[in-house]
Amino acid sequence: MNSRVHIEVPADSGFGPAHLPYCVFRPLGEAPRVGARLGDSIIDLAVALDDPMFAQPSLNAFMTQGPQCWREIRERVRVAADSELPATAVHSVRAVRLDLPVEIGDYVDFYASLDHATAMGRMLRPAGEPLLPNWRHLPVGYHGRAGTVVVSGTDIIRPQGQRRTDSGTPDFGPSRRLDIEAELGFIVGAGSELGRPIETDAFAEHVFGVALVNDWSARDIQAWEGQPLGPFLGKSFATTLSAWVTPLDALTEARIPLPPQHPEPLPYLRDDESWGLDIRVRIEWNGQLVSTPPFRRMYWSPAQMLAHMTVNGTSTRTGDLFASGTISGADRSERGSLMEMSWGGTEPIDLNGVQRTFLDDGDEVVITASAPAVGGGHLELGEVRGRIASA
Amino acid sequence: MNSRVHIEVPADSGFGPAHLPYCVFRPLGEAPRVGARLGDSIIDLAVALDDPMFAQPSLNAFMTQGPQCWREIRERVRVAADSELPATAVHSVRAVRLDLPVEIGDYVDFYASLDHATAMGRMLRPAGEPLLPNWRHLPVGYHGRAGTVVVSGTDIIRPQGQRRTDSGTPDFGPSRRLDIEAELGFIVGAGSELGRPIETDAFAEHVFGVALVNDWSARDIQAWEGQPLGPFLGKSFATTLSAWVTPLDALTEARIPLPPQHPEPLPYLRDDESWGLDIRVRIEWNGQLVSTPPFRRMYWSPAQMLAHMTVNGTSTRTGDLFASGTISGADRSERGSLMEMSWGGTEPIDLNGVQRTFLDDGDEVVITASAPAVGGGHLELGEVRGRIASA
Repeated sequence: MNSRVHIEVPADSGFGPAHLPYCVFRPLGEAPRVGARLGDSIIDLAVALDDPMFAQPSLNAFMTQGPQCWREIRERVRVAADSELPATAVHSVRAVRLDLPVEIGDYVDFYASLDHATAMGRMLRPAGEPLLPNWRHLPVGYHGRAGTVVVSGTDIIRPQGQRRTDSGTPDFGPSRRLDIEAELGFIVGAGSELGRPIETDAFAEHVFGVALVNDWSARDIQAWEGQPLGPFLGKSFATTLSAWVTPLDALTEARIPLPPQHPEPLPYLRDDESWGLDIRVRIEWNGQLVSTPPFRRMYWSPAQMLAHMTVNGTSTRTGDLFASGTISGADRSERGSLMEMSWGGTEPIDLNGVQRTFLDDGDEVVITASAPAVGGGHLELGEVRGRIASA
Repeated sequence: MNSRVHIEVPADSGFGPAHLPYCVFRPLGEAPRVGARLGDSIIDLAVALDDPMFAQPSLNAFMTQGPQCWREIRERVRVAADSELPATAVHSVRAVRLDLPVEIGDYVDFYASLDHATAMGRMLRPAGEPLLPNWRHLPVGYHGRAGTVVVSGTDIIRPQGQRRTDSGTPDFGPSRRLDIEAELGFIVGAGSELGRPIETDAFAEHVFGVALVNDWSARDIQAWEGQPLGPFLGKSFATTLSAWVTPLDALTEARIPLPPQHPEPLPYLRDDESWGLDIRVRIEWNGQLVSTPPFRRMYWSPAQMLAHMTVNGTSTRTGDLFASGTISGADRSERGSLMEMSWGGTEPIDLNGVQRTFLDDGDEVVITASAPAVGGGHLELGEVRGRIASA
């Protein structure tokens, strides 16, 4: 039982030694614990680092320790990943179940893509300005349901509810306009106190890492219920989070300047070192690549989202999740929702030879993403996968 | 140390033996634990019932046990309250600190008062119909921030943020229109699974009890940010919950028929035994009684709120909180927010001889409520108290 192994990783792996994302995994018949990924292997950190902080069913106990601990652990994982490890500390990603990696505190969803907000505005308010007056002044956002954030691979049960009809009276039944929203999620590791806004330059002291998000949306339910208080049942039935959380430090090579912002944001939203992320997203629908949304075009930066979310004195907690909102580019091939790709259902998408608009039962959507890795090459964020089950 | 005491309660107490609300309290220098209130005393349930389920910093471990356990414990508390108790099991409410009684899961806020929604509609859309087309078809609601639910007595720091101005460009600073919303909150004890809506007649299998809520609101922040995705920073800075949770079974005498609903709700919102609650709310502002909102006039019932919230398959968790939205009556003396009492700031309120509209620093608001008790007399819900601290 003292055999040792060295994990071999192909040079073009998206999970090389510059990435090392975290997960919560469950070896057959064992309790969940925290792991780090190298190639197609998971390193059991409770064993490899001999630390009970990782013998936990979520990353929260680790995340709450704060950025100095995150850096130290990342360095120790890097050393371990490069060493011979006890065989008992190494599992194949295919032999284990992956759990939701984070115990979610609050879930906030932003609306930070100019291309997405413009497209939605054109569809929903064709007679008016596509952007509402507040959009260029603040990152619009709202609270979603934390209790229905599920891990990648969880089936999505088609929601039922009151659906908008042309008559002005709703009908009731399973959503007929079930949609996706490809987003990037940011996970708060170290929280903040009531009355203490997080300034833009303190982002890395609080945010532990990123994960992909699919914010499933029932457009017919949402369209009927959404005034005046915003989305509720059209979103709350499920939000899928990737099983892998990429540490913020793994994305330093992906940092890029933000697109220009006009008008200039208020001082609390300015940041001398503001950055966006060059993350290329892919959306596959039943195995067909249907879109490649570019995160680099997002208008509001992750640091601006967090600064805005807390400027009113709101506290944050370990496990809080805030997502970017749908990532869309300017081109049809870069849209992050079926609502946009099918232009509200009016321009069907050719899916393996069939004309389609929204999701059917049995459909599977897989969202993946890649980014430049530190030291060259690329890294792959954990996928977000979900299949639609009937209502 | 074996002395025993019998708690004496005046006949007109709002905390008599028919009430017995729960709290989490912290005797000087000791760890927080669960108590039940009788008169001006708190019974330490971990001691009185010799059960470690109550040696916990929240009611969650107890609530998650489900309705049969809730009934059994309530009967055991009733017996204990009528007996001689070990002196070590009894504390004065004035000698302990009260903590937030529940670890909040998700927080949903409804908009269930016809009088409130009508008043807000008249103010915000004076040219149109006061009610939006969906209002009489479903209980409109949205998700609030669970992490900033605080216990009664916590100071409320005036939020800062982007404020709407007449120019169309926002300015930035402390809210000038800081408001209250007097609400009733319902606490989910026993959760439900994804894909399993909670029908109206299953309400009492899931809801543990009720508490008063003040959903503080910054109207100038809310007015600027709120389209198209609803309230965010105008609400997220704080929501106050009473320290006492009244068991649902203590309110059976308060049940009353619902007001008529037109049009007839869809089948999932119907309930043969639907009920509202005859709870009389009082709002005191700097010691002056300024409003007495009647919960009995609420349009949507608590069971309809829960059925609607879950009809899309949303799961619920122990500790989820859903609140009624502002409780208002038809009369000016019955409005549950300063926005309504001062009609958007245009009709000042005489407060101890001074004309006032919204909250100033140093102001204190106390919301209390009473209801008929089982066996006659009345019960008092736990108060919600908060003082405004400067930004």
